[in-house]
Order: sequence, then C-alpha cells, then structure tokens
Amino acid sequence: MVLTSSPAALPVDARQQVSRLMQRLQDDICARLEALDGKAKFREDRWERPGGGGGRSRVIQQGDVFEQGGVNFSEVFGSHLPPSILKQRPEAAGHPFYATGTSMVLHPRNPYVPTVHLNYRYFEAGPVWWFGGGMDLTPYYLFEEDAAHFHRTAKAACDRLDPVYYPVFKIWCDRYFFLPHRGEARGVGGIFFDYQDERPGLLYRPEGQAEGDPEQLASEPPSLQVRVGSRSWEHLFQLVQTCGDAFLPAYVPIVERRQGMEWGERERQFQLYRRGRYVEFNLVYDRGTIFGLQTQGRTESILMSLPPLVRWEYGYEPQPDTWEAKLHQVLRQPQDWA
Amino acid sequence: MVLTSSPAALPVDARQQVSRLMQRLQDDICARLEALDGKAKFREDRWERPGGGGGRSRVIQQGDVFEQGGVNFSEVFGSHLPPSILKQRPEAAGHPFYATGTSMVLHPRNPYVPTVHLNYRYFEAGPVWWFGGGMDLTPYYLFEEDAAHFHRTAKAACDRLDPVYYPVFKIWCDRYFFLPHRGEARGVGGIFFDYQDERPGLLYRPEGQAEGDPEQLASEPPSLQVRVGSRSWEHLFQLVQTCGDAFLPAYVPIVERRQGMEWGERERQFQLYRRGRYVEFNLVYDRGTIFGLQTQGRTESILMSLPPLVRWEYGYEPQPDTWEAKLHQVLRQPQDWA
Repeated sequence: MVLTSSPAALPVDARQQVSRLMQRLQDDICARLEALDGKAKFREDRWERPGGGGGRSRVIQQGDVFEQGGVNFSEVFGSHLPPSILKQRPEAAGHPFYATGTSMVLHPRNPYVPTVHLNYRYFEAGPVWWFGGGMDLTPYYLFEEDAAHFHRTAKAACDRLDPVYYPVFKIWCDRYFFLPHRGEARGVGGIFFDYQDERPGLLYRPEGQAEGDPEQLASEPPSLQVRVGSRSWEHLFQLVQTCGDAFLPAYVPIVERRQGMEWGERERQFQLYRRGRYVEFNLVYDRGTIFGLQTQGRTESILMSLPPLVRWEYGYEPQPDTWEAKLHQVLRQPQDWA
Repeated sequence: MVLTSSPAALPVDARQQVSRLMQRLQDDICARLEALDGKAKFREDRWERPGGGGGRSRVIQQGDVFEQGGVNFSEVFGSHLPPSILKQRPEAAGHPFYATGTSMVLHPRNPYVPTVHLNYRYFEAGPVWWFGGGMDLTPYYLFEEDAAHFHRTAKAACDRLDPVYYPVFKIWCDRYFFLPHRGEARGVGGIFFDYQDERPGLLYRPEGQAEGDPEQLASEPPSLQVRVGSRSWEHLFQLVQTCGDAFLPAYVPIVERRQGMEWGERERQFQLYRRGRYVEFNLVYDRGTIFGLQTQGRTESILMSLPPLVRWEYGYEPQPDTWEAKLHQVLRQPQDWA
C-alpha cells in the first residue's frame, strides 16, 4: 500500500514514538496488574491483520482480583477510514490511514472493586492526525472517596499540561459514556477526549458536530466553550503519555482498599446485573468497538472488553434506600468528584 | 397529532385488523407456552408511550422449560420514522407513522432446547404501508430433524399463500440473522421478510438497497431474483397471519422432544457462551432493537430479548469433532433444511 508522506509539523518518527509509548503503557499496566492480582498471569496473543498491521492482545482470567481483564495494543494500516470518522475529518477522505492505540478493560471479581476502562489512540490519515482517549471508572458499590481519588489523579495529570483540560475532558467523559436508553451514565466517569490536533479552536470536539460550529458553541454550557490556540504534536503526545501514566496511581489504590472486603450473593447478583449495562454501552454506542467491527478488526480482541459473566433481569429496580439504589441515583446525575 | 388519511387500497379498519391479529397471536402463544412450561406464568405489564401508543409486555421467568421469555405486543404512533427506515421508504418522509407488532424471544433452560425468535410487524406512514417479520431458530446442540421440522412448518405456511415465498424468505433470514464479525449465522434460520407492500417488483427488499435496483438484481443469485405482481393488503395480511400461526406447530414439538434430555455443566457452559452471540446480534445489528432504541421505545420491553445469563470467553474454540464444533461449522455455511 502506498502511504502519503507525513503532514508537516509531525516528527519524522511520529508513528514510532506513539507506537512505542502505547506498547510501554501496555507493558507497565500488565506488569503492575499481575503483581496486584498475585495469582493469574496475562496470556499474550500476537496477531496480524490481513489488511495490514497487527497487535498484541493480553488477557488475564480467573485471577484472585481480576475475573477477566484485557489489555490490547494494536497498530493498523487501512485503505480508508470508516464513514463515522470521515464525517468528523473530511480531509482524510481518499487517504489511507494509520492507527495505533492501547485499550484496556478490567472486570474484577469482588463487586466492591470497580470495573475500569482505559484507551489511548493516535491516527494519521493524509493531511490530518489526532490523538484521543481517556479512562473511566465503573463501580458497582459506590465509595465516594474512590471516585474522588480517581478523578483527582486524572485532574492532576491533565493539569500538568494545562489546567483547561480536566474540566472539559471530565464533562466530555460524562457525555460520551452515557446510555440514552437507560438515562444513565455508565459509571462515575473520568476523562475523555478525541480529535485533538494542532488546529486552534474549541477544545471540545465531539463526534458528529462540525468543529467550532457557532450554533453548537452557543448552546453549550460556558464550561465547554473553552478555546485553545495551536498546540504542537509534542504537547499532545505528552498529554497522552501523562494521562496514560496516571492510570495505575488512579486505580491501584482503589483495588488495594476494596479487595479484602467480604461480599456475598446479593453483591454478586448486582454486579452481574450492572455488567449488562457495560455490554449495552460497548455494543450499541462505543466508538472503539464500532470502529473495530467496521474495519474488520480482530473480533476476539475487540470484544475482550465484554464481561465474563453477565445477567439481564426484566424490570429490575433496586429496593429504595439501599446501596444499589444510591448507585442508580448517582448515575442519573453527573457529580463533581475532583 | 394529526394523522394523514389512509392510503387507497387499504381496508378502512386496516390498523384495527392488524392490531387485533397481533394481540391474538400474543395471546395464543402465551397460553400455549404456559401450558408447555407447566410451572411459570407470564407476568403482564401494560404501558403507554409518552409520544403516543403503548403495549403489553409479558415475561415468563424461572420456569421449568423457560429460563426467561418475553412476548411483546405494541402499537405506537410517532411524528417521523427514523432515518434508517426513511432511506428505504422515502415517501414516508415528513409523515407521522403508525406501527404495530408482536415480538418474542424464548430462552429455554435446557441447552438441548433451542432459543427461538418471532416478530411480525406492520407500518403505515403517509402514502405507504408494509408488513414484515419472520421466525428463526437458534439451537445450542443441533438436531438436524429439529431444524428440518421448523423449516418445513414455515415452508408449508408460506406455500399456502404462494410457493415463491419460502425459498426467498429462507435466504433473506440467513442473510439478516448473520454476524459479520463472527462470520456466522445466528442459528439455523427460518423465514424473514420486510417491506412487503402492494407494489410489484422484486420480492427480496433488503434494507439499504433501492427496490428493484438493476445492478443489485443482476448480482444476486437466481433464487433471489423472484418478482411478484401487485398484491393486495388482504393477501399480505393473510401471509402474516398464516406465518404467525405456524410458530406454535413449528416450535412446540421440538421442546417436547428435547425437554426431558439430561444435561450437565458442559452443556450449560456452552449454552451461556452461545447466548453471547445472541446479545451481540441484537445489540449490534438487529433492526427491531435499533428501531426501538431510536424511537425512544420502552427499554425494558426492547431488551427483554436479552438472555438472563450470558458469558463471554476470550479465544474460545470448541474441541474438534465435538457436538459443539459441529454447530460452529454449520453456522458458517447455511444449509437447506426443508
């Protein structure tokens, strides 16, 4: 396949730098999670994509801490981006693309330990490139101090680059990980961003909306009307690296605090039920999942995010004034955690 | 809401006739399934849709035969159809719509008893109306005689109206209930059709393709190049009624044959694993589910089709030369069952 030359303002080794970062992130995360679990080890599958590229998928199963978890690295070349992305980046039409990223979902066994997701990614296509990603927490039993710790750690990482980032990325995360058919957030959120590139304008660039669309801008709350000047590739690379490295300090202390808590059938059943929402989000709305399936990605790696065991129950409502009911309330109204 | 007057060639009581049929179908099916189960009873929730219309959702849970099953009737009015349908029926743009239908999914407890799905529906929107629906079988452990019985019963029903129907509806079903990301059919199929109206032309009218598109027609196998003349509303109503009434004789004998078979942990685990494919299909591809979520339908009723307990397992492949491996082979290659 003939790839176009790199756009100006990119380091000559841009792809290699990002690819190395994404692999290092995968390595660091897997090593720490194995130590945390103490029993299970990650199993690695290396794979190649017929269209170009490949990856290394790592799965941990039946651990003491992790009932199942997947940490994927992938690097793919393709002849054209799917329509959903071209709508947002029309300049990429007719060009081949390069995409690399690391994504992770962990499904702990103990219902007091939250599920967590991380994904960072980088695209190049003809004249355009961008970074995206984030991390978010999905508790079954909500400890406010855990949500606060996760958000504060994410905020501190963002703030090291620029204090404008966290407030926007936090709302972006709440909006992205939202299930309209349930009227619920997937969890307590974290940070999320996409289409971050060198072009000045509105920092918030949600899919399906033209950048800096004046009507869109006017209808958003002031907290989302943040504008940024031109930012270098190196600055955005640093943002992703800093946020990526914030994952372990954001999540590991939560696991350490909750892993020893005793739980029973009630907690297990609620966890399995809530995992259904995770499946609904990932299969109906998640951009990464849809991108993977649309680009004939490796199905087992894409769907590694799905929980090992899930249940659905028609018409379930938690009993009023229970811990379970509190979660359902909180998910209907985003909170300021940091 | 102001509804436009009925298009010509429709009985004045068209909506009432279909609505009555759909409710009668729900009643007949629920009564027979309760008798078959012998333990659990359907619980009914009647609901109204804020936008107009309503329905009655019936669920059976924790039965001797049915671990979970849902049989829904609904009748809804809306101000506009979603884009996916308007693409196929552009004449409906700018018109309010009426839709009624019955849909059902049964998840048996015994892994030797197949899961089954039925849906019949009717739409009116401005100058156009159409019928759609079908039924299909999803075994975990495949008995060829069961697949043959199901298909022969469906074929006999279709043949009573016109022998051109079954061969086309059979392939349509294989194509519709297909998971591209798995390269697999959801099950052994049955019959499926959509956009059936009075207009002559190609019988096969899949979503996303202009009717009778000459290029499309030329690239299809001869078995799909069947043309029909003008058909009356009454003929198509009769088709839906006859196919709907074929469900119980198609499915009940299979349950009666398999329900007594002993099963163990291996069969249970395979059933839970295969149920994951059902979830993947319904949330990623199913038109009824997507229509329901897009039109702010009643979420609990729409997602009643999801199994009560499901598992995913990274990288699972059945052992060669097992019953489980045979299913995976069959699903990769549609068979002639009738």
